[in-house]
Amino acid sequence: MFDVLDTDGAARRGRLTTRHGVVETPVFMPCGTYGTVKAMTPKALEEVGTQMLLGNTFHLMLRPGDETIKRLGGLHEFMQWSGPILTDSGGFQVWSLGELGKIGEAGVVFRSPVNGDRVELTPERSIAVQHNLGADVVMVFDECTPHPAPIETVRASMALSLRWAERCRDAHGDNESLLFGIVQGGMYDEVRQESLTGLEALEFDGYAIGGLSVGESKEEMDRVMCGILPMMPVDQPRYLMGVGTPQDLLRGVALGVDMFDCVLPTRNARNGYAFTSRGTLKIRNARHRMADVPLDPDCSCYTCANFSCAYLHHLDRCGEMLGSMLMTRHNLHYYHGLMARLRASIETGTFRTLIETLQKDWNSHYESV
Amino acid sequence: MFDVLDTDGAARRGRLTTRHGVVETPVFMPCGTYGTVKAMTPKALEEVGTQMLLGNTFHLMLRPGDETIKRLGGLHEFMQWSGPILTDSGGFQVWSLGELGKIGEAGVVFRSPVNGDRVELTPERSIAVQHNLGADVVMVFDECTPHPAPIETVRASMALSLRWAERCRDAHGDNESLLFGIVQGGMYDEVRQESLTGLEALEFDGYAIGGLSVGESKEEMDRVMCGILPMMPVDQPRYLMGVGTPQDLLRGVALGVDMFDCVLPTRNARNGYAFTSRGTLKIRNARHRMADVPLDPDCSCYTCANFSCAYLHHLDRCGEMLGSMLMTRHNLHYYHGLMARLRASIETGTFRTLIETLQKDWNSHYESV
Repeated sequence: MFDVLDTDGAARRGRLTTRHGVVETPVFMPCGTYGTVKAMTPKALEEVGTQMLLGNTFHLMLRPGDETIKRLGGLHEFMQWSGPILTDSGGFQVWSLGELGKIGEAGVVFRSPVNGDRVELTPERSIAVQHNLGADVVMVFDECTPHPAPIETVRASMALSLRWAERCRDAHGDNESLLFGIVQGGMYDEVRQESLTGLEALEFDGYAIGGLSVGESKEEMDRVMCGILPMMPVDQPRYLMGVGTPQDLLRGVALGVDMFDCVLPTRNARNGYAFTSRGTLKIRNARHRMADVPLDPDCSCYTCANFSCAYLHHLDRCGEMLGSMLMTRHNLHYYHGLMARLRASIETGTFRTLIETLQKDWNSHYESV
Repeated sequence: MFDVLDTDGAARRGRLTTRHGVVETPVFMPCGTYGTVKAMTPKALEEVGTQMLLGNTFHLMLRPGDETIKRLGGLHEFMQWSGPILTDSGGFQVWSLGELGKIGEAGVVFRSPVNGDRVELTPERSIAVQHNLGADVVMVFDECTPHPAPIETVRASMALSLRWAERCRDAHGDNESLLFGIVQGGMYDEVRQESLTGLEALEFDGYAIGGLSVGESKEEMDRVMCGILPMMPVDQPRYLMGVGTPQDLLRGVALGVDMFDCVLPTRNARNGYAFTSRGTLKIRNARHRMADVPLDPDCSCYTCANFSCAYLHHLDRCGEMLGSMLMTRHNLHYYHGLMARLRASIETGTFRTLIETLQKDWNSHYESV
């Protein structure tokens, strides 16, 4: 299911095998919230080099509903994506969207933000939904630990997530998809270690790091990653959830992370921000009005091969959909290309050199986001 | 520049030669208002069979400005469309957007809806803008005749448009693009005839019928077309502006029209309406929620080849951009496919049979728009 093909320091070059094909890691997964990566056709996703997508359990169970998707042949068939799909458990959205009603040992009850219906999400229900969607990688249902919080609170939350993880393990049964546990524990190394130990005893197919990018500083996030990553099993995939910027990806890979997801490249594209080999670029800035140059001279994507910054600037100013489409294409192409370069550098033992080159190029950036 | 290759009754199968290639007529031109056909890449436009686009002088002169586009290599280069482009004169938008300030013999003065600037649009300025954009077919600047209006008002308006047409002719000079006159005259046959006679004396490269689709009944529009089309020169292209539904296109072609443009297929797509071989379809209707069938079983477009009505229904409900992208692709593919069938039927002398077949199929439609 997961093979580590090569290492360079702590960085790993791996291969994850799923029901819907093989994924070369380290990998970045774009977010397909409502069964679509916003502004991208499946064909365009293939063209920019997407290997694997993330689907949102919370959103899809409300619209169009997981039973509907199941009856229509599953999420792959529904959205016409033939590659692997990982689904989150819905837990994070319940919290982050502020739809939380009541939380207990059984699970969470909340009001649907779509139609106001009372919805219950339990570990068993979350797994059933993910099975209905037909996910290739299923995530355990966990509580998103509050931040900041005292250690007792964080430990109690982690313990609840651990009990839920066991119920998820049971509910998953002999389903053919992979099931990943999620390491919680907030900013406390010892609670993180307790979480990991507890999850390992349940024998998951992979381990995620949850509860980061919740408002902590970059330094604190880095400290937590440095604490827990070296303790994680070496023969299974490691997934850093909801992260991040190109810099974050570099740091994660350097510390041994294999999988990432984030809305950043797609959401920022729609807001007019491009990630390039020279740093970030805000297309709305007046300096691009007459710029007859591509977003990134080193990029071969459809956007950069054809269109000028001046045109993208114009589309952004006019609120034209094509602007979002072209910016999203570029950003995802950039993210996937970055991961491909990281993978190649691990194979050739030049990871450190590549990082230095990338950092230098990014520091030549013309605008800060 | 224009060859009539075949006729079937009044219907004409023609070929328009422009600086950016040959256009097989009858042709439908999608609207690329702000230098983009909304929700479509140039590549997707090619894939659905677009031959020629319409660009909006009024919109482009305000954003990003015709001088800007000229400095960036012209509209073709700016938007990366290598086929022919026809630009309107800006006159219709000044009126339809209600931005009209003051109209006189010289032209029109209005406030820019973008930044409030005072903008003057004269026949000479309109032609200069269209030259700056690099249009392959340039339209004369005319006054949009009010409707309904007494014959004296309509005749005075037509006479002003005719004087402006002559100034446009002079301003166009020996520019390599084609210049089309626009027949005005409201709902009055005799004023239409006066307009046509006056324009013919100025020797344009083609003749458009303007001032329709302004709120008159279908019967009245048809009556005007029946009155003027048989009087128009047989060896030059005839362009029915701003029309229309598939039924309107059929009727226009039957009466001898060669060119059409309309926002209908693109705008309706974004609003969830599909044109199909079985009539129109509103994707938001609940009946499509579980429909595991394409929009149109007889269609080979990317949308119909891959996605179900259930998926498009879901995207529409969630307000996802991909919904607009896929619906627009389908509608334009349908419009272009319809025109291709009309062209083939004229070549084979089966135009009347095709019309009967199409009408019968459309009458089997499941929903009215």
